[in-house]
Amino acid sequence: MDEFLYQNLPLSLQSMKGLKKMNFIKAVESTWQKNNSLVCVGLDSDVAKIPLRFQDLENPLFEFNKAIVDATTDLVCAYKPQIAYYSASSAEQDLILTIDYIHRNYPGIPVILDAKRGDIGATSEKYVQEVFDRYKADAVTVNPYLGFDALQPFLNQKDKGVIILCRTSNPGARDIQDLESNRQKLYQIVAFKAVHEWNDNGNVLLVVGATFPGELKEIRTIVGDMPLLVPGIGAQGGDVEKAVVNGKSRNGTGMIINSSRGIIYAGQGDDFARAAREATMSLRDQINQFR
Amino acid sequence: MDEFLYQNLPLSLQSMKGLKKMNFIKAVESTWQKNNSLVCVGLDSDVAKIPLRFQDLENPLFEFNKAIVDATTDLVCAYKPQIAYYSASSAEQDLILTIDYIHRNYPGIPVILDAKRGDIGATSEKYVQEVFDRYKADAVTVNPYLGFDALQPFLNQKDKGVIILCRTSNPGARDIQDLESNRQKLYQIVAFKAVHEWNDNGNVLLVVGATFPGELKEIRTIVGDMPLLVPGIGAQGGDVEKAVVNGKSRNGTGMIINSSRGIIYAGQGDDFARAAREATMSLRDQINQFR
Repeated sequence: MDEFLYQNLPLSLQSMKGLKKMNFIKAVESTWQKNNSLVCVGLDSDVAKIPLRFQDLENPLFEFNKAIVDATTDLVCAYKPQIAYYSASSAEQDLILTIDYIHRNYPGIPVILDAKRGDIGATSEKYVQEVFDRYKADAVTVNPYLGFDALQPFLNQKDKGVIILCRTSNPGARDIQDLESNRQKLYQIVAFKAVHEWNDNGNVLLVVGATFPGELKEIRTIVGDMPLLVPGIGAQGGDVEKAVVNGKSRNGTGMIINSSRGIIYAGQGDDFARAAREATMSLRDQINQFR
Repeated sequence: MDEFLYQNLPLSLQSMKGLKKMNFIKAVESTWQKNNSLVCVGLDSDVAKIPLRFQDLENPLFEFNKAIVDATTDLVCAYKPQIAYYSASSAEQDLILTIDYIHRNYPGIPVILDAKRGDIGATSEKYVQEVFDRYKADAVTVNPYLGFDALQPFLNQKDKGVIILCRTSNPGARDIQDLESNRQKLYQIVAFKAVHEWNDNGNVLLVVGATFPGELKEIRTIVGDMPLLVPGIGAQGGDVEKAVVNGKSRNGTGMIINSSRGIIYAGQGDDFARAAREATMSLRDQINQFR
């Protein structure tokens, strides 16, 4: 099931005794290094926005994604399809095909399913099946509002990444996440619990929006070198320099910086894939200036 | 699209001038009265648990749900499929068929899609499409962690119910929801915002678990007569008397009390539908003692 087979890893990792699979975080560490890139391409592919020539195909979103992936695979640390775009247009099959395509053709590049799931334990078990058995994602975003037992079925998947919402990139993030309890804001408490209570399997990451660089810095201080998924660059207005300077880990990595619309819709015509490649390269280089 | 056509409503409502559709809360008020029931049957239907004879059918979950619905329709105020069960087993079509079946055959009985969605605005728009355009649910459960702008695309659907997680029924609910800020617990703050900041369209409800009757009472005080979706009866151990006494509104309604496993798996053999009917009737009567 898991596509991170050892033969696709750098030699330094292949030599680890008995390694057959690697967990999500190790896979990201490997792509950070191999591709010298912290960029994650968000596959928020929308039938209404992809080039016309895809729209009559049987699996338009998959065909579009395939072209984007083929054009960017040496420039990214991960891909991140947003499941809402597929669910809204009955395109489950496109999502399955996309993740399978990446795993088969570019093994070692992890796929994050952005689904923000969260429910009581028995139901979370079903979401685990959805995300990891059905779609075969390597990591998933989850919502912490229901507490530990709701997260546990996800956390139990040792080889998978569990990326917990901490401080999101939207303006309304402050409504709930900034509430203070004992002089700690809720997002700081979530960050603390993520490190000290929820990470027994070493597979936890956090979502922290690039739109709030001050908060990114505080969270980096709380979590040490825990990797962060950072949305909010591009269409949402996050500043690359501030995000990287405040969010990077000690060795200049530690971030999976997502751009969706800014990359996949960089070009509108026949050259959309080349435009996506250029946008990815440009973002990678911009990020690398500040690492 | 909306199945709550006026001809299926009680005469008192039919006489309202110009009423063609009604919003979700009005529909629930109508079924509370018509069926004298606060019971919601949770269609958490699992291919591994339904009677063997369904398992070879093309749409096993739909056929099972159909039998449960046919056996309980005069005893409930709503149905609530949990989407994770359908997503986990690639059964989107079963979910579509189930909701359509209820709307066509029992118009006026609202369907809540339990999906606990929540994402930034642009993505929430896609979830709105998923839940209301694709599945044609009448209400959806949503997660408040991302704040107002994440809820707004749902709240904008005036005829639909937006059921915001407040105090959930699981043990870990306390991890985040009980954190105190200015002497108010987070779930109290969510309840306050739900009433005073998020309810411009009069379509907001809250999820409050039956497993915490003290919290149910506090929340009832904060929200006045706002309807509450109350899970946690049955398999999760919530006490019916305490839940009803603490959670009811001034006129002895105000609650959509969900039971899933306790009803749909009440019987295991050929009599499962009769057993489900008896379990529903029994729960309805038990609840009605304390209203």
